[in-house]
Amino acid sequence: MANSLDRVLKAIKPLDSSVMATAQRRQDNLTKPHGSLGRLEELSIQIAGIRGEAIPKLEDKAIITMAADHGVVAEGVSLYPQEVTRQMVLNFLQDGAAINVLANHVGARVIVVDMGVIGGFQAMPGLLCKMIDFGTKNMAKGPAMTHQQAMDALKAGIELVEAEAKRGLDIIGTGDMGLGNTTASSAIFAAISGEPVKKATGRGTGIDNKQLAHKVKVIETALSINKPNPEDPIDVLAKVGGFEIGGLAGVILAGAAQRVPVVIDGFISGAAALIATGLSPQVKDYLIAAHVSAESGHKFLLDFLGLKPLLNLNMRLGEGTGAALGIFLAEAAVNILAQMATFAEAGVSEAEPK
Amino acid sequence: MANSLDRVLKAIKPLDSSVMATAQRRQDNLTKPHGSLGRLEELSIQIAGIRGEAIPKLEDKAIITMAADHGVVAEGVSLYPQEVTRQMVLNFLQDGAAINVLANHVGARVIVVDMGVIGGFQAMPGLLCKMIDFGTKNMAKGPAMTHQQAMDALKAGIELVEAEAKRGLDIIGTGDMGLGNTTASSAIFAAISGEPVKKATGRGTGIDNKQLAHKVKVIETALSINKPNPEDPIDVLAKVGGFEIGGLAGVILAGAAQRVPVVIDGFISGAAALIATGLSPQVKDYLIAAHVSAESGHKFLLDFLGLKPLLNLNMRLGEGTGAALGIFLAEAAVNILAQMATFAEAGVSEAEPK
Repeated sequence: MANSLDRVLKAIKPLDSSVMATAQRRQDNLTKPHGSLGRLEELSIQIAGIRGEAIPKLEDKAIITMAADHGVVAEGVSLYPQEVTRQMVLNFLQDGAAINVLANHVGARVIVVDMGVIGGFQAMPGLLCKMIDFGTKNMAKGPAMTHQQAMDALKAGIELVEAEAKRGLDIIGTGDMGLGNTTASSAIFAAISGEPVKKATGRGTGIDNKQLAHKVKVIETALSINKPNPEDPIDVLAKVGGFEIGGLAGVILAGAAQRVPVVIDGFISGAAALIATGLSPQVKDYLIAAHVSAESGHKFLLDFLGLKPLLNLNMRLGEGTGAALGIFLAEAAVNILAQMATFAEAGVSEAEPK
Repeated sequence: MANSLDRVLKAIKPLDSSVMATAQRRQDNLTKPHGSLGRLEELSIQIAGIRGEAIPKLEDKAIITMAADHGVVAEGVSLYPQEVTRQMVLNFLQDGAAINVLANHVGARVIVVDMGVIGGFQAMPGLLCKMIDFGTKNMAKGPAMTHQQAMDALKAGIELVEAEAKRGLDIIGTGDMGLGNTTASSAIFAAISGEPVKKATGRGTGIDNKQLAHKVKVIETALSINKPNPEDPIDVLAKVGGFEIGGLAGVILAGAAQRVPVVIDGFISGAAALIATGLSPQVKDYLIAAHVSAESGHKFLLDFLGLKPLLNLNMRLGEGTGAALGIFLAEAAVNILAQMATFAEAGVSEAEPK
């Protein structure tokens, strides 16, 4: 069981700095003032270093949207009824959700994964079953899952990416669906960073001040009952995490091992990135933070990870919607590197010596 | 001559608030928490109000990139030789520039317009000639252009958009090319806003501190010699503007008159928006600020216009590159409105009453 995780952790290597230098030289020869495309230029160099190609291509684009339920919903932390997780998975499969629209707009396929939705699903076209259990246990009463389930969730994400990589996978976006999963993500962030729960906790689907104060208390209770070890990401995942969060952490780790850039979405994907970078700090170089969401803890989470978001559009939906927009920017960045003319090719004069 | 401007100014009407209310109701019924797509939702409502359609379509997308030279380059305000304006226009026509790559990525056509490039061009496929003169005069010595030339530049932009609208035009991006045009734009911004020249002036293509201090002095000289009347946008355009800036102001005005959303690019397009909104404050509702650029005055210019940029990617290239990315987001926004399932359609439960 530990094998696939160990294998992946060993396979994660630094970015290719020689390829990055080549890409930077090309970027500096393109017909524009040096650095004038700002973060698009940086992004192109990062992706070159990840892919190990001076002019990388991003043809196979996939958003991996993992869904699971959370026992902590019993504490009344969400605005929507729990069955919405299951209903939204069906909506994904019928192409009706925001992630379908945005993935379609950027030419990415959506891989919908049941990591543990209450009620489960019959086999359906387009749905990948990696179910660990029918939702986690209520973390306000005890551990959300067993250590074994946490390992299984990571493994599910790893195996999914390894299978997709065999078909062709040039960039991954992460996405989530799970009523209650901002609660789990806030708990993970507070546990690993040591930040106060209040700072780590936001309004999720849109709760009011009173509900927010209650949510903070529930998370504080979960942390004090379970005492997750901040030095042990798998322990944190097991005690206060979620199946989709574990699955996404596996996706991130395997993406890095496969040298595939991983565009992380919002707060829940950020919690998965905390687990993944806790297991392998090198993973950070493979991450592209798509956006900073309106969920109030997300900014602090990205600061803690040392990631600078590309977008700030006040979004807070999850599903991979921010990641889809990030994939568009990543593709814009590599297209610039691949397709623009150099000064010499275009016969354009360079900057005059001072 | 004044006819086309007068006609356009009269045709600019408020957004359609009834259509916006319908679009907002639909947005609130889509399968996501209310407001959870943040600025994409706002953008979809604005575009509905502009187009007068509750579910607008953005099929015909054009980036209008206007080029002209600036006499003030004689003062040594730029890092690149002046012939780069002309060379870059040729690069646009050969599909080698950043704007070609990004416009292609978002499915927009680029309309390249010679508003007054030194040397001029023979007739070439893809190049629209609206040439006013071979570059402006040096504004540090006298007016950049005559009042008549300023009117002609506005008219050129207006006529271009009116012709394109006949073919089909659902969204416009603005773009510019012209060595020296950040100098003219800073002068316009300082003249109209009354802000100190230093605050309005940035590094353009990448000048150093000494060159920046010189650029500020040149602009201060231009303003004190020409004394543009801040209450008269056409006077400001004539005294310290540029042909491409006047042309883009005309594009913006005609876009609003035709009820076409106008995605404005960076600092130079912002200066054009200052001229346009000076002539018709209503125009502001038709503008989408694509990004805040790294050109230091741009943030203040957008604040002055009361526009909130969608992106902040540290870009400072112009050409319409930021606008191209903005068009992508505008399209994402309207696709969400058009293509997502409602709660009822998808059988997804709504938020529980408190």
